[in-house]
Amino acid sequence: MTENKQNNIMDYETVDFDPVTCELLLIDQTLLPNETKIIRLSNAKDIWDAIYLLKVRGAPAIGVAAAIGIYVLAARIKASDFEEFYAEFSRQKEYLDSSRPTAVNLSWALNRMDQTCIAHKELPLPELLEELKKEALAIKKEDTLVCKMIGEYGLSLVKPGDGILTHCNAGQLATSKYGTATAPIYLGHEKGYNFRVFADETRPLLQGARLTAYELHSAGVDVTLLCDNMCAMVMKNRWINAVFVGCDRVAANGDTANKIGTSVVATVAKHYNVPFYVCAPTSTIDMSLEHGNLIPIEERKPEEITKMWYEKPMAPEGIKAFNPAFDVTDHSLITAIVTEFGIARAPYKEAFEEIFRKKETEKK
Amino acid sequence: MTENKQNNIMDYETVDFDPVTCELLLIDQTLLPNETKIIRLSNAKDIWDAIYLLKVRGAPAIGVAAAIGIYVLAARIKASDFEEFYAEFSRQKEYLDSSRPTAVNLSWALNRMDQTCIAHKELPLPELLEELKKEALAIKKEDTLVCKMIGEYGLSLVKPGDGILTHCNAGQLATSKYGTATAPIYLGHEKGYNFRVFADETRPLLQGARLTAYELHSAGVDVTLLCDNMCAMVMKNRWINAVFVGCDRVAANGDTANKIGTSVVATVAKHYNVPFYVCAPTSTIDMSLEHGNLIPIEERKPEEITKMWYEKPMAPEGIKAFNPAFDVTDHSLITAIVTEFGIARAPYKEAFEEIFRKKETEKK
Repeated sequence: MTENKQNNIMDYETVDFDPVTCELLLIDQTLLPNETKIIRLSNAKDIWDAIYLLKVRGAPAIGVAAAIGIYVLAARIKASDFEEFYAEFSRQKEYLDSSRPTAVNLSWALNRMDQTCIAHKELPLPELLEELKKEALAIKKEDTLVCKMIGEYGLSLVKPGDGILTHCNAGQLATSKYGTATAPIYLGHEKGYNFRVFADETRPLLQGARLTAYELHSAGVDVTLLCDNMCAMVMKNRWINAVFVGCDRVAANGDTANKIGTSVVATVAKHYNVPFYVCAPTSTIDMSLEHGNLIPIEERKPEEITKMWYEKPMAPEGIKAFNPAFDVTDHSLITAIVTEFGIARAPYKEAFEEIFRKKETEKK
Repeated sequence: MTENKQNNIMDYETVDFDPVTCELLLIDQTLLPNETKIIRLSNAKDIWDAIYLLKVRGAPAIGVAAAIGIYVLAARIKASDFEEFYAEFSRQKEYLDSSRPTAVNLSWALNRMDQTCIAHKELPLPELLEELKKEALAIKKEDTLVCKMIGEYGLSLVKPGDGILTHCNAGQLATSKYGTATAPIYLGHEKGYNFRVFADETRPLLQGARLTAYELHSAGVDVTLLCDNMCAMVMKNRWINAVFVGCDRVAANGDTANKIGTSVVATVAKHYNVPFYVCAPTSTIDMSLEHGNLIPIEERKPEEITKMWYEKPMAPEGIKAFNPAFDVTDHSLITAIVTEFGIARAPYKEAFEEIFRKKETEKK
C-alpha cells in the first residue's frame, strides 16, 4: 500500500491491520480531502491521540480501530503469565476507553476484546493473542456486513430520484465499508436510483464537507454541500424526501446522541414533515440507559470553533465558545431507527427488545 | 481619524461621511476582527463592490451607506442643468441598487434620495446637492434613533439575567448605532441587566463570530460563541429565554427574510417554546409584498462555503454547493416584530398598518 498519495478515497480501507508489522493502519481523516495519508500506529499514546484528535472517527470505525488497536498493544505486552498479561491489557484497555466518551462502540469493542481475553485465559499467551487477533478482525468484518444490512433496510424507505439529506459523516470513512447513513445511498447508487444527496458541512470540524461530500463525490453520487443552517430552506423548497443520519449512542427509549446539530435537523424535518431516519448498528444501542439525558456528551476545546482551519482567528481574542461534540435527538423527532436486524419504530424499547431477540436467534 | 489601527470597535462609526474630502467612510468588515481599517470611497464601482463584498453589510447600514454613497457620487457629477444631472444621478442610483437584492433598505434609501432630488429640481445644482447631503445625513441620524427606539421596545420583552440568542450580526456594525437585534442588549447592559448572550457564528461568512461576538465582547457584554447547529442544544438546556434577530425585508404578512439559518433558529425556538423576536425598522417592512415567497433571495458563490477563510480547500475540488444568503421565516414562527413605533403581533398586516399610521401621525 502506498503510504501517501492522492487517490479515490473508495480504494482505501478506513481502518486496517498490517499482519506483517502488526500495526493499526488508519487514513488520517484530519488531512482529508487535501491529502490521503495512511498512518501506522503501534503504541498506546498514538492510538489514543488518533481517536481523540479524530484521525479516525465515526462510532463504528472507532470500535474497529479500538479492537485492532488493543490487539496491536496486546501483542507487544511483555509478560510471563496471564495475570501479568491481563493486568497490562486492562490498563491499556482503560486508557483507550478514555479517549472519547459519547460513542458506545468504543467500550463495546474493547469489552468484546476483554471477554475474548478472559474466555481464553487458560491458553498459552501466543495462542491467546491469536484469539484476540481473530476477534478484532471479526469485529471489522461484521461491521461491513452490518452496514450492508442497514443499507438494504434503509433503501426500502426511499425511492429512485429522492432527495436525501445527511449530517456529519456516517459514511464509509466512519465504518469499515458502506457507512451507516450512507449505506442506503451507496446501495441505491449501485442500482441506479439517482438520488440527489445534500450534505451538511457540519461545523466545527467540517466532517460533512471534508468527508461525506468527498466520499460520495468520489463514488459518483450527485451531492450538494450545504452549510448547517440551510436545512430549513432546502426542506421548505421540498428538495428533501428523507433524512438519514448515523449515531454514537442510542438509549433504550430511542433518544439518540449523534454529531452536534443532528437534533436541529430532526426538529426542522418534523416541522416540514420530512421523515427522519437514524441508522444504528445494534452495537450503538445502549439498553442500559433508559433515556438520552443519561448519555455523556463530550465537550471539546473552544479553539475548534474560534481558530481551527483558519489562517487568522475568526473570533475576537478571549471570546468564550461552547463546543459540545454531540447533541441528543429526542425519540419523538425520529421516524424510525434502522438496524442490521430490521427497522425499529416507536415505542422503541419494545422494538429494540424484538431486534435483540432476532439477533440472538440468528446467532444460534 | 486614524485609518488603520487595532482598537475598541465601539469607538468607530460603521458608516460615516467626511465633509472635507466628500467621501464615504466604512469600516471594512471583511477584515474584522483581526484588523480595523477605515476605507474611503468616492467612485461608483468601489461603493458597489463594498456593498456586494460585504465590506458594509446589515440592512440599515447598507441603506445609510447607499444614501451617503449616492450623495458622494452626485457631488462629482459634471452637469450644466438638472436634466443632465438627473440622468447621471439615476444611472448611478440604478447601479448601486443592483449590488444586493434582498435587503429592501438599499432601494428604500436610494428612493428617498431620488425623491429629494425631484423635490428640489428647481434649485440651482449646488443648492440641490446641499439638500441631498442633508437627506443622506438625516437618514443616518434617523437610523440611530430608530435603533434606540427598537432597543427600548425590545427591552420590555426580557428581564435581567435572561439568556438571549442572536443569529448573524444585527448589531452596531449593521447600523449607525446600537444595532437592531442588539439594541435591547446594549440598552439592558447600560442598566446592568447582566444578560447572557449566545451568538451563532453564522456560516458561511461568520458574521456572528467576526462581528457580533466581537462588538458585544468589546462592549463588555457576557457573550458565548456557538456554531449554528448548536441552537437546539442550548434551548433544550433552557439557557435561552428569548431570540432576537434582525431582518433584511419583512413582507406585509410578517414573513421575514433574514440571514440564512434564521428560519432554522425560529423553528427550533418554536419547538422549545422560546419567544422569537424580529427587530425591524419600518424601513425594512415592504407592504408591497403580500408574503415572503415574493422576496428575492440572493444566491452567492459556492466558494464562500468551500474555500473562503481556509488555508486549503475544505471540500473536494469540483463539489457543488448551494449558497443562499438569506432564508424566509414564516410569520407563524415569529412571536413579535419589534419596530421603532411599537411591537407588532399577529395578524401582522393589521399591526403594520397601525404602526405606519402611528409613524405618519408622529411625522406631523
